[in-house]
Amino acid sequence: MTAADARSRPGSLTVVGLGPGDTAHRTPAVSAALAAATDLLGYRTYLDLAGPFSDGQRVHASDNREELDRARHAFQLAAGGARVVLVSSGDPGVFAMAAAVVEALDNARDPAWHEVALSILPGVSAAQAAAALAGAPLGHDFCALSLSDNLKPWAEIERRLALVCEADLVLALYNPRSKARPDQFGQALRVIRAQRPADTVVVLGRDVGRADESLTVTTLAELAPAQVDMRTVVIVGSSRTRRIPRADGGCWVYTPRFY
Amino acid sequence: MTAADARSRPGSLTVVGLGPGDTAHRTPAVSAALAAATDLLGYRTYLDLAGPFSDGQRVHASDNREELDRARHAFQLAAGGARVVLVSSGDPGVFAMAAAVVEALDNARDPAWHEVALSILPGVSAAQAAAALAGAPLGHDFCALSLSDNLKPWAEIERRLALVCEADLVLALYNPRSKARPDQFGQALRVIRAQRPADTVVVLGRDVGRADESLTVTTLAELAPAQVDMRTVVIVGSSRTRRIPRADGGCWVYTPRFY
Repeated sequence: MTAADARSRPGSLTVVGLGPGDTAHRTPAVSAALAAATDLLGYRTYLDLAGPFSDGQRVHASDNREELDRARHAFQLAAGGARVVLVSSGDPGVFAMAAAVVEALDNARDPAWHEVALSILPGVSAAQAAAALAGAPLGHDFCALSLSDNLKPWAEIERRLALVCEADLVLALYNPRSKARPDQFGQALRVIRAQRPADTVVVLGRDVGRADESLTVTTLAELAPAQVDMRTVVIVGSSRTRRIPRADGGCWVYTPRFY
Repeated sequence: MTAADARSRPGSLTVVGLGPGDTAHRTPAVSAALAAATDLLGYRTYLDLAGPFSDGQRVHASDNREELDRARHAFQLAAGGARVVLVSSGDPGVFAMAAAVVEALDNARDPAWHEVALSILPGVSAAQAAAALAGAPLGHDFCALSLSDNLKPWAEIERRLALVCEADLVLALYNPRSKARPDQFGQALRVIRAQRPADTVVVLGRDVGRADESLTVTTLAELAPAQVDMRTVVIVGSSRTRRIPRADGGCWVYTPRFY
C-alpha cells in the first residue's frame, strides 16, 4: 500500500488497556492490537510496559498528562490512514483514555475523525488487580472514585465520599494523592473517618502486577497519607469487610456476599 | 506422583475469571491455570466457555448456584493434593466466586484448607466489556451494585440506590432481574427515576463477548424491565453522561472526565 492509498481512506484507532502491567494479565486482544499497530501513542511509562515494538512501528511517547491532546493526535493519525493504538494502563474505560477519546470525537476538529474505525479493548483495572492479591475486598457493592480535582471541584469529591460511605459501599479510590496536592488525601480521610469505624479494613495496592508491586493491609485508624501516592489504589472496606489470617503470616481480606 | 504422595501435602486452589466470554479477552494467566488444572469446578455454563479440557482433567460441573458449597468442594479437593481451578465468568472478585472462597476459608471445616496455595486471577468484568463496546460510560466515578436480594434485604438495595443517585455516580447494575424476582427491577427503576432525568442515558449489555451479544442504548424513560434479565448488565448514566452519533448509525456513550 502506498502512502497515497493510505491517505485515501481513514484508518483505525484502538484504545487498549494493558491491565496491571504483567503480560500474564494482558488480554490477547490487546496484545494483537499492539502487534498490528503502525503508530502507538501513550504516556511514556505505559509505552515502556507495552513494548518492545518492531522497527516499522512508529512510537509517539508523551511525557505529559494532557489526555485530550493525545486523543486528538491519535484521531489525526488515524484519519490519515494509520492503524493507531492508544495505550492506557489498566482498563481504558476506568479513569483512563477511553473517555478522552470519545470526548475528542464529540468535539471533532475534522469530520474525517467520524470515519475512523474506533474500538476500545477493556483490561483489568488497578483496583481489580489489588483486590485479587488481597482476596475479595470488592466482593460486594462498591464504587470507584477519582480523588483528583483537576477536572472536578473538591467539594463535589467530599460530597460523593460522604454519600457512598453512608451507602456502606466499599470504596476504590483512584489518583488518591499527588505531589501537586499532598494534603487532599488527608481531607478525604477525615470525611471517611467521620462515617466508618476506626478498625475498617484498608488495602493499599501500589504498582500491583509490576516488578515493584506492594500490597499493604491496614486499618482506617492506622492509615497515614504518606503511605499513598499516585501509583497507589486505595480500597476502603465497608462495615462488613473482614480480614482473616493467612498461613504465611499475612491476611486475606474479603467483603461477604451477604449483608 | 502416586495418590499417597498427592495426599501427603496440600495442593492449590486458583480462582479464575474468564472475562466476558470470548477468549480474546481472557488473560494468559487464566488460560495457563486452566491448562494446568487437575480438577475444574464451576457453574456448567462457565465450564462450557472455559473448555475444552484434556482427558486427564476432572471436570466437576454444577447446575446450582450454591457458591459456598462449590467453594468448600474446591478446598476439599485442593487439601487432598489436587491442582484445583474454580471458574467464574468476568472477574471472580466482582459479584463472583472469590468472596465465597475466602468466606469458606474463614469458616474452614478442615485446618488443612489453610495450607492450600490459594490465588485469585482477575478478569474483565461484564460492565467493563459492555462499557468498552458502548464507548466510555464508566469514564468517571461509578458504582457497581448487585440488585439480587438473595443475600441482602431489598430495603437496603433501595437505600443504596437512592444514595448513589444523589452522589451522581454512574450505576453498573449486576444481577438486575431474574425469573424468581421479575418485579424488583421495576421498583429499582422507580427509585432511580425519582432522582435522574428522563433522558438519562442507559446502556444494556447482554452476553457481551459471547456469540449472541447485544448492546442497547436507551434512556431512563424508555427502559422497560422486559428488556433486562440475569444475563444483562445495566449501566445508568450520571447527569453528565452523553451520547453522540456514530457514522454507522448507532451511537457512542461516554461520561466526561470533568464535572
